[in-house]
Amino acid sequence: MSDLLEQAVTAELLDRITEVVGAKGILTAEDDMAPFMAEERGLFVGKALAVVKPATAQEVAEVVKLCADEGVGIVPQGGNTGLVGGNVPFEHGREIVLNTSRLNRIRDIDPVNFTLTVDAGVVLETIQQAADEANCLFPLALGAQGSCQIGGNIASNAGGVNVLKYGNTRELVLGLEVVLPDGTIWNNMKSLGKDNTGYALKHLFIGGEGTLGIITGAVLKLFPKPVEQQTALCALDDVHDVTRVLSQARALSGDAVTAFELIGRFGMDLADRHLDGVSDPFEAPHPWYVLVEFSSSRPDANLRGAFETFLESAFEDGIIADAVIAESLDQGKMFWRLREGLPEAQKHEGASIKHDVSVPVSRVPEFLDRATKAVTEAMPGIRPCPFGHVGDGNIHYNLTQPEGMDPKEYLGHWDAMNRIVHDIVVDMVGSISAEHGVGRLKVDEIVHYKQAEEIEMMRRIKKALDPKGIMNPGKVVRV
Amino acid sequence: MSDLLEQAVTAELLDRITEVVGAKGILTAEDDMAPFMAEERGLFVGKALAVVKPATAQEVAEVVKLCADEGVGIVPQGGNTGLVGGNVPFEHGREIVLNTSRLNRIRDIDPVNFTLTVDAGVVLETIQQAADEANCLFPLALGAQGSCQIGGNIASNAGGVNVLKYGNTRELVLGLEVVLPDGTIWNNMKSLGKDNTGYALKHLFIGGEGTLGIITGAVLKLFPKPVEQQTALCALDDVHDVTRVLSQARALSGDAVTAFELIGRFGMDLADRHLDGVSDPFEAPHPWYVLVEFSSSRPDANLRGAFETFLESAFEDGIIADAVIAESLDQGKMFWRLREGLPEAQKHEGASIKHDVSVPVSRVPEFLDRATKAVTEAMPGIRPCPFGHVGDGNIHYNLTQPEGMDPKEYLGHWDAMNRIVHDIVVDMVGSISAEHGVGRLKVDEIVHYKQAEEIEMMRRIKKALDPKGIMNPGKVVRV
Repeated sequence: MSDLLEQAVTAELLDRITEVVGAKGILTAEDDMAPFMAEERGLFVGKALAVVKPATAQEVAEVVKLCADEGVGIVPQGGNTGLVGGNVPFEHGREIVLNTSRLNRIRDIDPVNFTLTVDAGVVLETIQQAADEANCLFPLALGAQGSCQIGGNIASNAGGVNVLKYGNTRELVLGLEVVLPDGTIWNNMKSLGKDNTGYALKHLFIGGEGTLGIITGAVLKLFPKPVEQQTALCALDDVHDVTRVLSQARALSGDAVTAFELIGRFGMDLADRHLDGVSDPFEAPHPWYVLVEFSSSRPDANLRGAFETFLESAFEDGIIADAVIAESLDQGKMFWRLREGLPEAQKHEGASIKHDVSVPVSRVPEFLDRATKAVTEAMPGIRPCPFGHVGDGNIHYNLTQPEGMDPKEYLGHWDAMNRIVHDIVVDMVGSISAEHGVGRLKVDEIVHYKQAEEIEMMRRIKKALDPKGIMNPGKVVRV
Repeated sequence: MSDLLEQAVTAELLDRITEVVGAKGILTAEDDMAPFMAEERGLFVGKALAVVKPATAQEVAEVVKLCADEGVGIVPQGGNTGLVGGNVPFEHGREIVLNTSRLNRIRDIDPVNFTLTVDAGVVLETIQQAADEANCLFPLALGAQGSCQIGGNIASNAGGVNVLKYGNTRELVLGLEVVLPDGTIWNNMKSLGKDNTGYALKHLFIGGEGTLGIITGAVLKLFPKPVEQQTALCALDDVHDVTRVLSQARALSGDAVTAFELIGRFGMDLADRHLDGVSDPFEAPHPWYVLVEFSSSRPDANLRGAFETFLESAFEDGIIADAVIAESLDQGKMFWRLREGLPEAQKHEGASIKHDVSVPVSRVPEFLDRATKAVTEAMPGIRPCPFGHVGDGNIHYNLTQPEGMDPKEYLGHWDAMNRIVHDIVVDMVGSISAEHGVGRLKVDEIVHYKQAEEIEMMRRIKKALDPKGIMNPGKVVRV
C-alpha cells in the first residue's frame, strides 16, 4: 500500500472508531497520547495511531471489529502499571492502544454468594474498598493497587502479598466477559463454584496478557473479612530453617498464615539506614528475617495464642533465633514498611539488577546459596538483596551494585546476570517470571528456556484464536 | 482400505504396541477386555482393538506415536469410574483403550513444600493415605475414591465434598506430565506457587477429559492435616435461609467450613426408613437440613466454641430452627452416612432421574423453588430429592418416581425432565454439569446451551492441539 493510501485508510479507520466511542473516547495528538506510550520503568516507549477509550463492552467489540477488518493491531491497556512492556505499543506506530479506564462500573456485589461483578477498568483499590464495605475481603493486594485496573490484574494473573492463603488472581476469578479477536463478546460471567462443561477457556485469557482477547468484565471471588490480625518479625540464624518455620506456622495457625515474607541481613541494614521511621527491632543482628502474619475472620480466633504456640514450638526446635510480635497496629505497619520499602532503600546504594523468580518453596534456601555464590563469583563485591514472598517460593532476587562502581556500567551486566540467575532457577524447575509475566521483555527468554513443544502449543493456540494476529501482537509468543 | 488390508494393518499395529508394552501390557481377547468396555451405570458399552496398559510415560508416548501414525483413536482410561461415558470406547471398535493402572508409583512426597508427585494411575485413596502418613492432607474426596485414579480425577476436574474449602481438582494440581497427540512428553512437573511464563496450558488438560493429551504424572498440592473436626446437623424451617447460614458459618469459623451439605425432608424420611443405623436425630420434622463440618489443623482451635458462637448467632437471627452437634465420632459418622446414603435410600423407592447442576450459591433456594414447581407441574406425584454440595451451589437434583409408576416408563421421561431442569439452570447462569463433565453423554447438550462462539473456540483448540483427532475422539467436543 502506498503511504498516501495507507494514510487515507488510517484516517477513515480513526473516523469510524470516533463514531463508535465519541470524541472524548479517542486521543490522537502526540502530547495527549504520551502518558499511554511508555511503561513505568521506561524500558519501552512506543507510538500508536490512537489511544481509544471505549465506555462499554459493546463499544470495545465494535472497535475490535473495525481493527480486525483493517488488520490493525490492538494493545489492551489498563492502569499501565505492568513491568514487562506488555501494555505499551511498539515503536512502529501502526497499532492502537485500547485503554479500559472508562469501563469503570462495579456492576454488582453479592456478599451472600461472596462475589463481586465488575467492569475491567475498575481500579484494584476501589474493588478492595467495595468488598470491605460489604463486610468481605477481596484479597488481591500489591504495590500498584491505587492505579492498576482489575482487567490488567487478570490479564497478567497478578500475584502480590496474599497469594499463600488466597491464591493468585487466577484463583480469584469465577467468570469473565471477553471481546474476542473477531469482535464477538464472549459472555462467561458465571459465579459458580463448580462447572465442568468443556475446556477451561477462561484460564487462557487469565494470564494471556491481552494476546487472545480483551477482558471487559469479571466476576470475582470474595472471602469473609478478617477481624483479627497478628504480625511478627522472626529472626533466623540459618536460612535453611525457613521452610520448616513456614510449615509449622501453617499447621499451628490452622492455615491462617496470610503473609510470610523473607528479608535478608543486607536488606535490614538498608532499611534501618535509609527508611524513615523504620528500625531494626532486634538487639543483635541476625542473617535472616521473616515477616509472618496470621489473619482470621473468626472473632474468637485468639491468633495471639496461636502465635505464641507457634513461636514456642519454633524456639524449641531451634529454628527461630528471636521474634517480636507487633504490640500495636503501628508496630505491625512498621514491619510492613520495612518489607515494602526495600526497593526504595536499595536505590540509596546505587543501581539494582532485578529478578522475579520462583522455585519450589522447599528449595528456596538452596536457590539463595547457589545464586549468591554464582553472582559473587561473576562479580566480586556485588550485594545481593533477596526478599519476597517465600511462602510462594517467589523471591525478588535483587542485586545491588558493588560500592563505588559506575551505575551505568553495572546495569550493562543486566543480561549476563539474568542468564546466571535464570539458569539456576530453571535447573531447579523454577519460573523466570513468577509474577510479572512475559510481555515484550521475556518473549525470547521463555523460548530459550521452555520445552520447544510448549512454545509450539502456545503458537498454535494463538493462531487458532487470533488468526489475524491483531491482539497485542508480538507479546508473550511470536507466531 | 479393504477389510483384509485393514486387518493386516491392525495386526501389525498391535504387534508393534506389544513390542513396546510387553505381553502383560496388552489385552485383546473379548472376555479380558469386557471390564474396560462399559462404564459404571451401563449407559454405554463399547468395543476396542485392544486394552493397552503401559507401565511408564515413555511407553505411553511410544504407543501414542504408533497410533498417530495409523490414525487410530485412543481412549484414555483410569479407574473407569466416570459417569458421562468419557472413559469407554465407541461401539465401532476401531479405537484402543489406554488404561493407566500400571502407572502406579508415588514418585515423591515433600511435606515441607506441601507437595506430592505421582504417576497418573495411583488410586485416589492411596494418595490420601500417603499424604496422611506424612502428616498432611490431600483434600480431594469422593465416593469412588477406592478405585478412581488421580489421572482421571485431573482429566475430569473432579469435585467431591471438600471443594468449598480446598477447591476442585483443578486448584489442587501444581504440575503435569502429559503425552501429547504426537507422542511427545510435555514435562510441566512444576511445584510452584507462582509461574507467569505464558498461556496456562495446564488448565486445558485439567478437565479436558483426555481429548487433548494423556496425563501421565502430576504434582499435587497438600495442606496441613486437620487435628480437630466438629460436625453438626442443622434444621431449617425455610430453605431461603440456607445461604445466610453458610455465610455466617464461614465468617464465624474463620473460614474453617470444610463441608456444607443440603438434605431435604424427603431425603431425611428415606434415610430414616431405609438406611441401617441412620435415624432422624430431631424430635420434630423440619423441611430442610444442612450437614455442617468445621476442620482445623490448629491444636488449640476450639472449633467447638466456634460452632457454639455460630449456632447462637444463627438461632438469634431465626435462620436455624434446631441443631445437633455430633457428641462423638460415631454420631458424626452417622450424619455422613445419612448424607452419603441418599442415592442408595432412593433406590428403595423406585427409579430416579438425576441431575448434576450448579447455580450461584445465593440462588440455590430460588433454583429449588423453580425446579420443584416445574417438574411437579410436568409430572404430578414426582418426588424431588435434592441434596448435595450447597456450599458450592452444586445440587444433585434427583427425582424419585411417583409412587406406583412403572420404573421403565418413568425413566422414559429422562430427557424431557433434563430439558426442564437444565433450562432453569441455564436461565440462572448455572452449569448443567457441575462435577461429572461432558464425556459422550452431554456433547450435544453443551452445544444446545453454550454460546456458539464458545463451542467454536473449543473446536479450534481441539484441532490446533490434536490435528489428527486421535485423542478420545467424539468426546467433549466434535470437530
